[in-house]
Amino acid sequence: MAHTGIGKIALQIALSDQDIGQKIIEKYENKGYISVRGQVGTMDVKKIYAAVETAVYREDMIRENYHEEHALYHAISEALSGYCRGSVALDTVLRTTGLEFAVVRGELVIDEVSGGDWIAVVLYGFIGSPRRGFEHEAIGLGIQSI
Amino acid sequence: MAHTGIGKIALQIALSDQDIGQKIIEKYENKGYISVRGQVGTMDVKKIYAAVETAVYREDMIRENYHEEHALYHAISEALSGYCRGSVALDTVLRTTGLEFAVVRGELVIDEVSGGDWIAVVLYGFIGSPRRGFEHEAIGLGIQSI
Amino acid sequence: MAHTGIGKIALQIALSDQDIGQKIIEKYENKGYISVRGQVGTMDVKKIYAAVETAVYREDMIRENYHEEHALYHAISEALSGYCRGSVALDTVLRTTGLEFAVVRGELVIDEVSGGDWIAVVLYGFIGSPRRGFEHEAIGLGIQSI
Amino acid sequence: MAHTGIGKIALQIALSDQDIGQKIIEKYENKGYISVRGQVGTMDVKKIYAAVETAVYREDMIRENYHEEHALYHAISEALSGYCRGSVALDTVLRTTGLEFAVVRGELVIDEVSGGDWIAVVLYGFIGSPRRGFEHEAIGLGIQSI
Amino acid sequence: MAHTGIGKIALQIALSDQDIGQKIIEKYENKGYISVRGQVGTMDVKKIYAAVETAVYREDMIRENYHEEHALYHAISEALSGYCRGSVALDTVLRTTGLEFAVVRGELVIDEVSGGDWIAVVLYGFIGSPRRGFEHEAIGLGIQSI
Amino acid sequence: MAHTGIGKIALQIALSDQDIGQKIIEKYENKGYISVRGQVGTMDVKKIYAAVETAVYREDMIRENYHEEHALYHAISEALSGYCRGSVALDTVLRTTGLEFAVVRGELVIDEVSGGDWIAVVLYGFIGSPRRGFEHEAIGLGIQSI
Repeated sequence: MAHTGIGKIALQIALSDQDIGQKIIEKYENKGYISVRGQVGTMDVKKIYAAVETAVYREDMIRENYHEEHALYHAISEALSGYCRGSVALDTVLRTTGLEFAVVRGELVIDEVSGGDWIAVVLYGFIGSPRRGFEHEAIGLGIQSI
Repeated sequence: MAHTGIGKIALQIALSDQDIGQKIIEKYENKGYISVRGQVGTMDVKKIYAAVETAVYREDMIRENYHEEHALYHAISEALSGYCRGSVALDTVLRTTGLEFAVVRGELVIDEVSGGDWIAVVLYGFIGSPRRGFEHEAIGLGIQSI
Repeated sequence: MAHTGIGKIALQIALSDQDIGQKIIEKYENKGYISVRGQVGTMDVKKIYAAVETAVYREDMIRENYHEEHALYHAISEALSGYCRGSVALDTVLRTTGLEFAVVRGELVIDEVSGGDWIAVVLYGFIGSPRRGFEHEAIGLGIQSI
Repeated sequence: MAHTGIGKIALQIALSDQDIGQKIIEKYENKGYISVRGQVGTMDVKKIYAAVETAVYREDMIRENYHEEHALYHAISEALSGYCRGSVALDTVLRTTGLEFAVVRGELVIDEVSGGDWIAVVLYGFIGSPRRGFEHEAIGLGIQSI
Repeated sequence: MAHTGIGKIALQIALSDQDIGQKIIEKYENKGYISVRGQVGTMDVKKIYAAVETAVYREDMIRENYHEEHALYHAISEALSGYCRGSVALDTVLRTTGLEFAVVRGELVIDEVSGGDWIAVVLYGFIGSPRRGFEHEAIGLGIQSI
Repeated sequence: MAHTGIGKIALQIALSDQDIGQKIIEKYENKGYISVRGQVGTMDVKKIYAAVETAVYREDMIRENYHEEHALYHAISEALSGYCRGSVALDTVLRTTGLEFAVVRGELVIDEVSGGDWIAVVLYGFIGSPRRGFEHEAIGLGIQSI
């Protein structure tokens, strides 16, 4: 674990505020990583998929074919599974969330070769009852070969 | 999300190396948080429970009764659920892992009052085939009232 | 298992009709337990959360802070997981339910000390197709430290 | 819910001690129900399957063919899913259990006709850390047509 | 595995186009199997339950009582669990599907005796983003004693 | 669904006996698909991973790097999730299995372009109690971009 992985890059971006996050994105561009950061607040799981996919397409991070979209979809699904810790559900179990997300594309570990690009999705935010202050943090990370 | 939560403290500790992690632990002691950091490598899920519980008891972070142990157990379970993204399994699905963990006890959000202490568990590491380099990062965070 | 646990108290209340249920509630008040009993019929999982939480607040069984609400939420979630036996879903899988619920707060086992209060939630009723008589019984029990 | 279902019969048997349980079994024999009660303590999930199946065969409650064994197996699986509230696991997540079980065969609701026999399995006991007193109650109910 | 099972019959029917599927249905009628084939396209999981149940009732494949409907419901649920590979969800996770289904009733294995009839449900189709061509195949098979 | 997908090719291979399976493999070689067929009998889930991975490496179907191995691992996991219909478990829930598997690599749909190769894994066999004849069929299909 001496080397920095694509997951840690995405975690650093999602855990920082927008300005610092942007600086981290730029720092890793020299290492061949392209990244995006955004936020979404919702009780509707599918809006999280849509928000992340929209941000990724806007930055041209993936080619617009099913081969790459499929990898992104699975990375989001894994991040959501970690974020919700079990069943992926919000509204149906009376929960709401507000979260920052980060998506990074590049090698799995900086300066190492794994056979192709990977995509990492991080969701970090607060999840809880639809009532002010009745919420705690959650995080999810999904990584797929792309 | 302007305020720092107990989850972010635990994430910062687990994502840093040992020296920096120790400094972060000390920094938040002034804010009333007690924390511990450790590592474990295994194919056996129950050893992750055992390693985290042992570290927590060694630091006297929880009282040795079932009321507090139960909260810790559930926080570890939620972190594992996020770490494994779905079914909590390692050996049975031919995976192994090496991870850093951090446990933090204190208020849910710095300088806010929620009604009592909380415990946050973070697992961060690499998970994959039992073969060098065939692994990627994973993270899990569990938070329980204690 | 010689001693009566908080789960068995909640099970007895939910499995009895309203009159007997009320007598069981009163019987255990001397032992330091506060309890409530109610019913809900729905195809919408979140209405079960709402019905149980409303009954608990109406009886002042928990303090109105997130620390205690979080424990209650998790106890309901565990009861629902047992009630649905796997994925927590009703309408989406074409099922409906009518159920009695009981919530009990107090020590984990009568006359024993575990370090603090616990909350037990029982759901007992009939689940099945939205068609008269096409349904069978289900039960769920969730217990959390509070 | 004015009528007594097969699930409630099984719940009453499992929640009672051995002597009372036996009396409940006899009481419902007149209504056409055959039942068995037993106990098992283990960290190994498959021993719960084996203990219940052995008791059922010993009492000749099901015909020894796959058609009926399959229904019993699914009823045990559903009861275990409720008992464990999610992933069915004990040893692998550092938990142990001691439980009473009851199996009842007969009509779904007393004095009603549903088209054939049903089988109900109840598991009731304590689940927790392999450490004295660090455990709480759990219950599971599975019902299958047979 | 030298003998043909009810599952393989259902798989052959679902994997063939309508004309060939009909011929396979007729071929196995001599062996005592009754079958139906249909299709459904939806983002709504409960419409898959409804489409399969409607087709089965229309062909009088099951008696209209809860004993048989319950077995069919569980067979559909297992097929859906395999089709979705994990959580049974479509719209909530931004997926849509178009699928062929086949239901077969008869002995578990041709010319063998297991103690009664079984029902097999196969779902085969394409699942993916609600966007043309962004989808791949999925299959699910559920088998229950009836 | 007028076009043949990679999943249907893998299904045809796994559902046929060895000789016919080999002919189907050869037939699709002209369309650019490479495939393998094998069998495994076990109570141990990880041996299914190992058997499939070994067959794939022996046929040089994937490059021996983590990028491709990861896609194969996920395709096996999805096939297993469908095969077990829910929790991936055999020995722990007192079940055993004997199955045929097929793995196919190539375009997602014959003569269509999706942006790169895909891998499809099919598991088809019998699952049940470790007792002769007490078993029924199961199937699972996993598809990943590679």
